[in-house]
Amino acid sequence: MTAPKPAPPGLLEAFRAYEAALMADDVAALDRLFAPGASTLRADADGVLVGHDQISAFRAARGGAAQRTLVQTHVQVIDDEHVLVVAATELARGGRGLQTQLWTRFPDVVEHGGWKVTAAHVSTPPPALDTRIWRVVGDPLVPPTAAGPLSGESVAVKDLYAVAGQCIGAGNPAWLAAAEPEVEHAYAVGRLLDAGAAIRGIARTDELAYSLAGTNAHYGTPPNPKAPYRIPGGSSNGSASAVSLGHATIGLGTDTGGSIRVPASYQGLYGIRTTHGAVPMTGTVPLAPDFDAVGWLTRSADLLAAVGDVLLPEGGNGQGGGTDLVFVPELVGLAEHDVATAVLAWLARTDAAERHWPLAELDGWLRAFQTWQAHQAWRSHGAWLTGNLDVLGADVRGRFEAAAAIDVETAEQAHRQVLEARARIRDLVADRILVLPSASSVAPLAVTGSTLETRNATMRLTCLAGIGGLPAVSIPTRTTHGLPVGVCLVAAAGRDRDLLAVATRLAAR
Amino acid sequence: MTAPKPAPPGLLEAFRAYEAALMADDVAALDRLFAPGASTLRADADGVLVGHDQISAFRAARGGAAQRTLVQTHVQVIDDEHVLVVAATELARGGRGLQTQLWTRFPDVVEHGGWKVTAAHVSTPPPALDTRIWRVVGDPLVPPTAAGPLSGESVAVKDLYAVAGQCIGAGNPAWLAAAEPEVEHAYAVGRLLDAGAAIRGIARTDELAYSLAGTNAHYGTPPNPKAPYRIPGGSSNGSASAVSLGHATIGLGTDTGGSIRVPASYQGLYGIRTTHGAVPMTGTVPLAPDFDAVGWLTRSADLLAAVGDVLLPEGGNGQGGGTDLVFVPELVGLAEHDVATAVLAWLARTDAAERHWPLAELDGWLRAFQTWQAHQAWRSHGAWLTGNLDVLGADVRGRFEAAAAIDVETAEQAHRQVLEARARIRDLVADRILVLPSASSVAPLAVTGSTLETRNATMRLTCLAGIGGLPAVSIPTRTTHGLPVGVCLVAAAGRDRDLLAVATRLAAR
Repeated sequence: MTAPKPAPPGLLEAFRAYEAALMADDVAALDRLFAPGASTLRADADGVLVGHDQISAFRAARGGAAQRTLVQTHVQVIDDEHVLVVAATELARGGRGLQTQLWTRFPDVVEHGGWKVTAAHVSTPPPALDTRIWRVVGDPLVPPTAAGPLSGESVAVKDLYAVAGQCIGAGNPAWLAAAEPEVEHAYAVGRLLDAGAAIRGIARTDELAYSLAGTNAHYGTPPNPKAPYRIPGGSSNGSASAVSLGHATIGLGTDTGGSIRVPASYQGLYGIRTTHGAVPMTGTVPLAPDFDAVGWLTRSADLLAAVGDVLLPEGGNGQGGGTDLVFVPELVGLAEHDVATAVLAWLARTDAAERHWPLAELDGWLRAFQTWQAHQAWRSHGAWLTGNLDVLGADVRGRFEAAAAIDVETAEQAHRQVLEARARIRDLVADRILVLPSASSVAPLAVTGSTLETRNATMRLTCLAGIGGLPAVSIPTRTTHGLPVGVCLVAAAGRDRDLLAVATRLAAR
Repeated sequence: MTAPKPAPPGLLEAFRAYEAALMADDVAALDRLFAPGASTLRADADGVLVGHDQISAFRAARGGAAQRTLVQTHVQVIDDEHVLVVAATELARGGRGLQTQLWTRFPDVVEHGGWKVTAAHVSTPPPALDTRIWRVVGDPLVPPTAAGPLSGESVAVKDLYAVAGQCIGAGNPAWLAAAEPEVEHAYAVGRLLDAGAAIRGIARTDELAYSLAGTNAHYGTPPNPKAPYRIPGGSSNGSASAVSLGHATIGLGTDTGGSIRVPASYQGLYGIRTTHGAVPMTGTVPLAPDFDAVGWLTRSADLLAAVGDVLLPEGGNGQGGGTDLVFVPELVGLAEHDVATAVLAWLARTDAAERHWPLAELDGWLRAFQTWQAHQAWRSHGAWLTGNLDVLGADVRGRFEAAAAIDVETAEQAHRQVLEARARIRDLVADRILVLPSASSVAPLAVTGSTLETRNATMRLTCLAGIGGLPAVSIPTRTTHGLPVGVCLVAAAGRDRDLLAVATRLAAR
């Protein structure tokens, strides 16, 4: 055991200069104190930034670091040109931070003795609760009412479901402010409690569930731990991120046009949108009642099925049906290349059979779905929103404004098209299990968000089960770059349990 | 810009061997893969472990790390004998982890090519809520009822206070299970809401507030961010840690025998125990009503005083009083050396005058205080606890068992002694401000906890304000080693606002 080596000249001065620049948010100085090039690293709980450019862009955008004081500095000297510094900080806002920096001396650089950071790992103390994910959370928030098959499980309840004693917030502060505490649990909440599950908390949703992005304008964008710096998917975004992060084991949500399937796909979760009408929506804020369905997200196929045993009606659709998987290359091909490749690779590990469907009508189906959905959404919330649209974030507001402008004739025509399309889709699916991408792309980057094209490309796929009122289960796979992709199984109405059984069997392969 | 260097021979194999040993909790293998000696570092959110021995002891005690999968590995080669590895993981229980390791090659070592870790920084994803600190938490849990002087502040409410719509848990699961939701807010809770503060959540307490340690047997020991690996102090432990961590700005608590002053001292917070009876305890679970007092904790003297403006009665005791600080060397000397030194150093920066008090009776006062406190505690809770003591953790149970055994004659004698001591203490304090240590020691290490000696040594100091029914404000300072120490100011009954003004003035120095 030898005495620790003293820090080489200039190192501690550079370290202190970095700290001072950080506290002053002197981005130019910070950029100079980080090593140039593509190998420089900066990592924190959100992810790993690689290369000076990424780090510089992050720093320019974040608006400064939390004010803090160094309280411990441990210096590990590697040689005269390399030093590791591990430092503990106390934050002015409370809590303890930690950072590790690898410093390297660049002999040609004069400033700060040539010392620059080549790698940094930063830990900051978490808040009491992540308000992007949760509105309220407890240990538990509501205990189970009985022991049962879900004993030990915890539920993130989308903020559209009634939890007795709590208000419903519906993803919007004005809605929440006007709400009274609920007297009774929503049907699904009560059933889960009776089956032994505890309610962990009430999770964020996109406003009135009218989005697939998961980027609530008021409460922020929950993280996607499986795809750093990317959006979580919505509208069941809080429930999904809570399950991804291990905050809860069951994410209770809803799915009108993909609000379970899209976050499942973006976050690598299992998810089910149930047959329309199979699980009562009692005690749940509607979006478009002709399409709204109860759904849930889990990290395992077994638990997805166990929740189904509790929430789904006994038996199936009474008509049996096969477990043959089929896929339509033209549908898979609607997804972006990396997603289509991942789904095809997944299909190659099954005995799924290829089918060719006439898809010329698909764009018309999508338009009819979106029009009737919008009309129903305005029927659900127009009374509250009239004269009050400015309580909404821009994205959701835009959709409600468009919804308000749809005349009855257009809406009724869309409704007729939906009913025709429903019959066609049900005929096509028949007693088979259709496999298609859950979403058209991997989770978009948070800095760009979800564009209208992304939304429509995904809804072209998700609207099939939505129009058909069909159950859909999303199974996680990955792109060759490791990003989550959902493989969606769709079957005839009432075959939810069959889909869950197939998903369980495929997961056990 | 040059291409990244390839990893030197054996490094990646050693890295993978470490990961495998970690997943298998092969402590011996992990110990061999960490560099020997006193300079090896392992850091996480809880603190920095220094030296192979500390790291080894931590590893042996923790019972394994969470199961995880590596998803990203970034290798930064320093030279043939030093490599930094930054790796991201996905945890089986959900969430994303991050670790940075500095690997060094020991040429004399054969195993794993001689590669060993000399420094590691580990980040694991936080839970939905820290259940050691919180029972329930929200954004907010309860919004303010009006704008006011505390607008923007958030309150951690000790789980002894009624919050309308929520049950009281009193730090005990059996108590909580039998509780009904409260109909009205406790007095202090309602006042804070009316003054603009939001309720962040309901914070853990030692069981029925009958402890100064903050090591609840059911819910665990909240962290002390100012003193890693040390206990938080209790019984207002959840409120205190919530404020320390920045989860809330105001920690509402109670103080019977030190339950505000001790966590304030251990965690470097400002805290006040109010004059007995000055703030109504309506809606609060009692411990010993003759001593129980409302109190609160903050990170700043200004906010401590601002809360006082809201909760304390107008005016003071109507008798004025000086702002002369006095200290009694024999009282300061009751604290451990490092604490006494810190308090004397703090005193040296004031014009406090030395006094000599006759302290022969102090041990008798303490015994009388503890006996009457115990008797009152049994009167408060004996009916519920009779035949039910096994719902309590060992420590608190022991105290209640002792309380149950106190006969009425002994209790009455203790009561008389308390009343005599109260008069004596009030005479001694008179119109001065007494300065003494808030606790007799720094926060004890969590592995040892608080011993009976520590408890009694601290209560010898804290019982003075308890017996006297006097207000006491704890002001943070530090030992020469940087550990928090509380300096306690005590004044005549009703002089709470004077103490808060003095604390604010001293903090602004």
